Amino acid sequence: MTGRHARGNVFAALPAAVDRELVESLVDDPGVRIERIVSTGQVTPEGYWYDQAEHEFVLLLSGAAVLHFEADDRRIALAAGDWVEIPAHVRHRVDWTDPDAPTVWLAVFRRPAG
Amino acid sequence: MTGRHARGNVFAALPAAVDRELVESLVDDPGVRIERIVSTGQVTPEGYWYDQAEHEFVLLLSGAAVLHFEADDRRIALAAGDWVEIPAHVRHRVDWTDPDAPTVWLAVFRRPAG
Repeated sequence: MTGRHARGNVFAALPAAVDRELVESLVDDPGVRIERIVSTGQVTPEGYWYDQAEHEFVLLLSGAAVLHFEADDRRIALAAGDWVEIPAHVRHRVDWTDPDAPTVWLAVFRRPAG
Repeated sequence: MTGRHARGNVFAALPAAVDRELVESLVDDPGVRIERIVSTGQVTPEGYWYDQAEHEFVLLLSGAAVLHFEADDRRIALAAGDWVEIPAHVRHRVDWTDPDAPTVWLAVFRRPAG
């Protein structure tokens, strides 16, 4: 390995508004992916639940959002600094993101072992 | 998997000042560990370089710090939102953290594949 390092700022180059979510991969290892996701009002399409093969650690860096879990019909409001661990195959959706300002997420997806 | 999810806020329960770094594991998978680290003025001991077997993605969430890389004697000043990917065995140290306010880091350590 050399002394060169990928780097950036999660709040850089934020679009004022976009008509779809912006997803950028910051790290892409075998089995682990770190993404910056920027939402400006987008929600998961009506009736759709994410059902992921990977574990997801998600941290809200700025903005606001509401996550919704199918199993117990629970909604969790997220503000800056809030994180949630979503195990693989726990069905969830994004019910709301702030339409007036960018909501920035850091997501760490990990393929389950074995 | 059930509908229960570990969660928290990275800015919660911040100590006003501590005499050593505070390290908390938020996620601990085989091969992947996500930590919150809180520094208040701590630096790496003089003359010591971290030489880690794991890749580390580190994101500064609040506060300020200076990372120092041995290979090219480069120093990188980090502010809120700045992230750096530090490949395994890239020797580095923390030269400075803000002594007057908590510096909060999110670190994602990944064991290299193979």
